[in-house]
Amino acid sequence: MSNALIVHGGAPTAVINASLYGAVTEARKHPEIEHFYAAIGGSGAVLKEHFLDLFTAPKEELELLLHTPGSAIGTSRDPLETEDYDQMARVIARHNIRYVFFTGGNGSMDTCGKVYQACCRAGVDVNVVGIPKTIDNDISVTDHAPGFASAARYIAETTAEISQDVRGLPIHVCVIEAMGRNAGWIAAASALARSGDGDGPDLIYLPEVPFDEDAFLTEVERLHREKGGVVVVASEGLRKADGEPIVEPIFQVGRAVYYGDVSAHLANLVIRKLGIKARSEKPGIAGRASAAYQSRLDRDEAVEAGSTAVRAAVEGKNGVMVGFRRLPGEEYRAETILIPIEEVMLHERTMPREFIAENGHDVTQAFIDWCRPLLGEPVRRYVTFKNRPLSVD
Amino acid sequence: MSNALIVHGGAPTAVINASLYGAVTEARKHPEIEHFYAAIGGSGAVLKEHFLDLFTAPKEELELLLHTPGSAIGTSRDPLETEDYDQMARVIARHNIRYVFFTGGNGSMDTCGKVYQACCRAGVDVNVVGIPKTIDNDISVTDHAPGFASAARYIAETTAEISQDVRGLPIHVCVIEAMGRNAGWIAAASALARSGDGDGPDLIYLPEVPFDEDAFLTEVERLHREKGGVVVVASEGLRKADGEPIVEPIFQVGRAVYYGDVSAHLANLVIRKLGIKARSEKPGIAGRASAAYQSRLDRDEAVEAGSTAVRAAVEGKNGVMVGFRRLPGEEYRAETILIPIEEVMLHERTMPREFIAENGHDVTQAFIDWCRPLLGEPVRRYVTFKNRPLSVD
Repeated sequence: MSNALIVHGGAPTAVINASLYGAVTEARKHPEIEHFYAAIGGSGAVLKEHFLDLFTAPKEELELLLHTPGSAIGTSRDPLETEDYDQMARVIARHNIRYVFFTGGNGSMDTCGKVYQACCRAGVDVNVVGIPKTIDNDISVTDHAPGFASAARYIAETTAEISQDVRGLPIHVCVIEAMGRNAGWIAAASALARSGDGDGPDLIYLPEVPFDEDAFLTEVERLHREKGGVVVVASEGLRKADGEPIVEPIFQVGRAVYYGDVSAHLANLVIRKLGIKARSEKPGIAGRASAAYQSRLDRDEAVEAGSTAVRAAVEGKNGVMVGFRRLPGEEYRAETILIPIEEVMLHERTMPREFIAENGHDVTQAFIDWCRPLLGEPVRRYVTFKNRPLSVD
Repeated sequence: MSNALIVHGGAPTAVINASLYGAVTEARKHPEIEHFYAAIGGSGAVLKEHFLDLFTAPKEELELLLHTPGSAIGTSRDPLETEDYDQMARVIARHNIRYVFFTGGNGSMDTCGKVYQACCRAGVDVNVVGIPKTIDNDISVTDHAPGFASAARYIAETTAEISQDVRGLPIHVCVIEAMGRNAGWIAAASALARSGDGDGPDLIYLPEVPFDEDAFLTEVERLHREKGGVVVVASEGLRKADGEPIVEPIFQVGRAVYYGDVSAHLANLVIRKLGIKARSEKPGIAGRASAAYQSRLDRDEAVEAGSTAVRAAVEGKNGVMVGFRRLPGEEYRAETILIPIEEVMLHERTMPREFIAENGHDVTQAFIDWCRPLLGEPVRRYVTFKNRPLSVD
């Protein structure tokens, strides 16, 4: 008999708890696992040995994980040193932990890889497997990572709703800020808000394309003249040609620098330079925490990533991360794969050139085709009477 | 045979189109109404005679109105002069319009009242009835107005989701901005995010209470020390004791003054003055346009407000607005009433003292009891394992 340990790293997603559900329910099928420990509070909790055995949780509670945002077992962004990894290896040995799972993004996969290396160094016999998780979709090799599709569905639905509002009352330029750090995947997904009759985002700015303020203002002015209301989606990670963020740093605490909001900055630019009414919307954390906009496919794949990781560990796999490979064909199908963890540690995958429109402020049809199946159910159908021929004119 | 005309005024809500649905479907039952015109683009469209007969729209399309955000027939914030009202009276007479409906808030009810007066002056025989609509819930006399409950449900659900995220990763102070202008109703509804075990908003700041920066910082520092993560909900309309907004004006276009975001301002205060990591979330327009978070009760009451208005007009009522009166009893029940429009024109109803907590940064149980039934289905159930006794410690 031996034990398992699962650790959440980095920021939560709408489906990180679904992967936890997948892992626990799969682990229950393997009698060689006696306790399934969750580190309560991320990697720091491993060092403090703060463990909760999830095998003690009733089934009904575990099922709530499928729709619970945030991380139900906590998570952290603790910076770790070499001695911390060695200490983790000792904790793992002391608690007879044979299977270790890290759910996270690039940073957590780095942690995962280093724990694996520390265990090797210390001669601790353990299988370490990574479960991918990120809203930013910036993990390498895998087609996409659980968490992204729900964040994508959130931005697409929210942009569609805001676009309907702006279409009904076309008096302002509305700048929506999308998360995603240095990768434009989430901002790009706002294009799925378009249902075909001129609604949805008018302009989409991605961090992969250097931001040109003059070109932006020219586009906004033209669209405002033509349409009245204009909907802009801007990634939080927009940078100028020199690589600097488009917003000034507002404050520095230790090594962390805080920047102002990109959406507010762009709205203020429109007001000041064009004299056009503008406002900003920044759903922020809401975009990664929404259970209502969760993508069903994302949830299912998150569960699958968790269960696949447990099966892989029990089968003796080590130092790998679960990934998804898309299969050829008209209809979306994907299979899980195991990726050597060194291939994903700290690598950052941004939007490839073929997904970015020539004009630099939109996406291509290839991106739409790639992204649409991940969102699951189609975006809600709306009706508008604003574009109909009038009865009396 | 005669015609009807409906006009939307002011900003959309998640259910303004549901009231439109209620009005059109009720009107269909009255053979004396030949055409049911919608002014396409608010009150300005009445002057331009831009009308679409909604009796020509198929049933399936009309049903999409129940879940379509924004205003499907457009809306406006056109400033109107006395001659405009006289012109409206002439347009109404020319198109043989016997029933006129204005859906809107305080400003639109003012328009509604003035159209009524202009028609009286011109001897145009018309029945004018108002359909209440506002997310801000600041219309007088009525217990509440359609649009509010969905905005309330949005902020409650969103705050619950963000609180789960912050609980899972308690590294920052998170300031959520709520709409509502000078009234704190929406910000107050965030209290419904609490499910009882310490989650939900920690602090709620309402525009009815003068904002004290030092007291705010003291509270945030204390909570951050105790909990790590802190969730603050702040109304966009916060003012200092001298009545000035807590944010500086950033720009003036004509008579309109633009202010910076309250949430960003408060987050920056926390960073600068306390050196604590803080961020802001400002869902903005998303909060009034969300079909996913729509309250079912709100939608039903919005439909009822529309149909009641049509019945009232056909029965000969004039110069009134539909309102809701809550009936006594344990279970929520309400009846529609007709309120003389002068009683609501431009009056603004803010939160009464008995709904605001003694400490000035929360709501009372009386408010919770008043608000809860309006949100319809209970806020989703979540699970967290962070507060459990540990298996290994």
